[in-house]
Amino acid sequence: MSAFRDDGAIALDWVATYLERVRELPVLSQVDPGQIRAALPASPPDDAEPFEAVLRDLDTVLLPGLTHWQSPRFFAYFATTGSEPGILAELMIAGLNQVGILWRTSPALQELEEVTLDWLRQLVGLPEEFHGHIEDTASSGVLASLAVARLLRPDQRVVVCSEHAHSVVDKAARLLELELRKVPVDDEFRLRPDLLELGDACAVVATIGTTGAAAVDPVPEMADACRGAGAWLHVDAAYAGSAAVCPELRGHFAGWERADSIGVNPHKWLGVPMDCSALWTCRPDEFRRAFSLVPEFLRSPDDAVNLSELSIPLGRRFRALKLWAVLRCYGRSGLQERIREHVRLASLFERWVLAEPGWEVVAPRHFSLVCFRRQGTDEENERLLERVNDSGEVFLSHARLGGRYALRLAVGNFRTTEDDVRLAWDVLRREAVRS
Amino acid sequence: MSAFRDDGAIALDWVATYLERVRELPVLSQVDPGQIRAALPASPPDDAEPFEAVLRDLDTVLLPGLTHWQSPRFFAYFATTGSEPGILAELMIAGLNQVGILWRTSPALQELEEVTLDWLRQLVGLPEEFHGHIEDTASSGVLASLAVARLLRPDQRVVVCSEHAHSVVDKAARLLELELRKVPVDDEFRLRPDLLELGDACAVVATIGTTGAAAVDPVPEMADACRGAGAWLHVDAAYAGSAAVCPELRGHFAGWERADSIGVNPHKWLGVPMDCSALWTCRPDEFRRAFSLVPEFLRSPDDAVNLSELSIPLGRRFRALKLWAVLRCYGRSGLQERIREHVRLASLFERWVLAEPGWEVVAPRHFSLVCFRRQGTDEENERLLERVNDSGEVFLSHARLGGRYALRLAVGNFRTTEDDVRLAWDVLRREAVRS
Repeated sequence: MSAFRDDGAIALDWVATYLERVRELPVLSQVDPGQIRAALPASPPDDAEPFEAVLRDLDTVLLPGLTHWQSPRFFAYFATTGSEPGILAELMIAGLNQVGILWRTSPALQELEEVTLDWLRQLVGLPEEFHGHIEDTASSGVLASLAVARLLRPDQRVVVCSEHAHSVVDKAARLLELELRKVPVDDEFRLRPDLLELGDACAVVATIGTTGAAAVDPVPEMADACRGAGAWLHVDAAYAGSAAVCPELRGHFAGWERADSIGVNPHKWLGVPMDCSALWTCRPDEFRRAFSLVPEFLRSPDDAVNLSELSIPLGRRFRALKLWAVLRCYGRSGLQERIREHVRLASLFERWVLAEPGWEVVAPRHFSLVCFRRQGTDEENERLLERVNDSGEVFLSHARLGGRYALRLAVGNFRTTEDDVRLAWDVLRREAVRS
Repeated sequence: MSAFRDDGAIALDWVATYLERVRELPVLSQVDPGQIRAALPASPPDDAEPFEAVLRDLDTVLLPGLTHWQSPRFFAYFATTGSEPGILAELMIAGLNQVGILWRTSPALQELEEVTLDWLRQLVGLPEEFHGHIEDTASSGVLASLAVARLLRPDQRVVVCSEHAHSVVDKAARLLELELRKVPVDDEFRLRPDLLELGDACAVVATIGTTGAAAVDPVPEMADACRGAGAWLHVDAAYAGSAAVCPELRGHFAGWERADSIGVNPHKWLGVPMDCSALWTCRPDEFRRAFSLVPEFLRSPDDAVNLSELSIPLGRRFRALKLWAVLRCYGRSGLQERIREHVRLASLFERWVLAEPGWEVVAPRHFSLVCFRRQGTDEENERLLERVNDSGEVFLSHARLGGRYALRLAVGNFRTTEDDVRLAWDVLRREAVRS
């Protein structure tokens, strides 16, 4: 183990130094497609190389090809954080290399997953009948939930969601051979419940915090409609769900406790490194009916229910360990503090935009995402965004809202400060007048 | 970062010490269902706790609930290794926290994934028209491949595989609403090609290295039949595929280069920590047709193809980094050496069983898995296995082969020595006479 200890010390120092200097690196990678590939050997080595050679090439070959999601100046999509306790937990996870296929193959993995998901359920204020497990991404969680819905109503092959629902719903519907019906949104980008028609629907997906504008669908009305029609209700709160840790933001989550399944991604806004997507359901028996399949070679003398009976993959990583580490090393108060600070920073940025002539906010801000644009055409705004991102100083992304191109600034990195948000605003205004 | 450096040094030392002492720990966890859960607090902490408190509870609360997949005395299912370079790479992966949703969100992630999968393709001797990407598990790889097959032949809703194919095929067929037709096997547990009927089939799954007995289906005959019927051929080599790194074992892989898609799990027998499942296809355009879906908010100025267009999840971890680290830190020769040693150890164990009165080998041994049993009833063998596993000294699993209960000893941990295999044999013989 002496090589492991020595290499490990170097690797650890590399990560610590990376986190110290990441703010200064170009946020969006500036390489061209194929550039990294061309810099790598075409064939694997015949003989062993030292770990230090890998680290050296990480610096010299790969680093220019990284888009720095850990940068406090990353404001694109939904900003994320691989927090320090989460990073170290990943080291432990790999060191232990647990493979959760059955309860007995790692009782601690399974029971810690159930316990931490229950902790998180309490933190976001969901009732105790919700049973949780971890999926890799919201894509898988939506897919699993819709598969259960289809099983329950095999002749109703329609899924309903708003036109602003995430593309993972499209992808899941395609895989499940369900028809997807998209309902128009109102002027705040919320699904219009008066246009809901569920006669032939097995499932409805409501979004709390849409990807485009972080809009909040009218979940109570949607839950009423689902109850009337006997359709499954899945609530996609992949990004915004973490905000429910703060009681003052719970109003946005009204009615989600009436869902059949709910997805929240701790790898988005709760400091857990990729990947860790929470999926709760108050109907775990239906999930088990859809996914349980224990072949002979996996039968064991105990009669425990295995988490693999609730989802698609047979094997699972010990992801619960990083969620556990993060929940403990921040605590409820520490997580609330970070969410509140991000909401404050977004609100501050929103005020700057509102106060500046020639700029406008184009969607209500509920959480830590601000949607805005500069006067002028869509093309001008698109080119503005490209100039901003090409500067490498900050990284933002876009959405199309009400037919218009909008810029998006998403606060979500634990290391982001007011100065970082101010820099984004400075760069935006500087590049705007350069057009 | 000083807390991170300090905590990290402790975490690193914990992992190093764990790997030093893991041989002495009971391999199969001896706890009862619910025992770990009961030892954990029912609610999350309100305030932040130090990382050391997490580590302390890992030792005192979780450790008894771990089944030690890293133990050199783990011989159940398929034994795996989280190798040292793989473990440290996971630390880097979490530190960088890349989220691969589009090429631009991490050009290095995408291009390193393509390059390392091409390296691995060369190592296992597949032709260069195979394009590879990483899935979490073989479950997802089989699901994706069958979804493509269904898309190509929408009216042929049958999947064909042997009765010894892995249950992930059942699960995928269920999710895709395909009928699964299981073909009987011959006396060496290989699919009987004379019983193949593909008139209504969109896909066939051939297995090289079945889970029960590591049997090798007749891939050339199956490829002929698929060509005749226009069916997709997926080769599941999740376990055994790594053995193709050794030229002298390539004979078992005859015909796999004629598959449409092939799955091999480097997290099984190639030292990569969970999870990392390779999926190659010579028809990537068909995968793209099945899975590509780039919504407005993900459109970017570059015209790169994104890896997320080839599989179900939108976001992916930087798994390629651990595969890269392992392939470099072992090299072709180092990986060959470990595979050969495992095959040698399995062959040695097989000879001991063959030479011992009252014991028999019940399946041909091609790789590092030995299937055997002790004279007596199935129930006696089952109880023997339970006693062996309850001793905590070694951990083996079972299969049902030709209607009979069989014990399985799978060599696959990089740290396993001849002494460990000998211990397994000693424990088996000791517990056999105690019955």
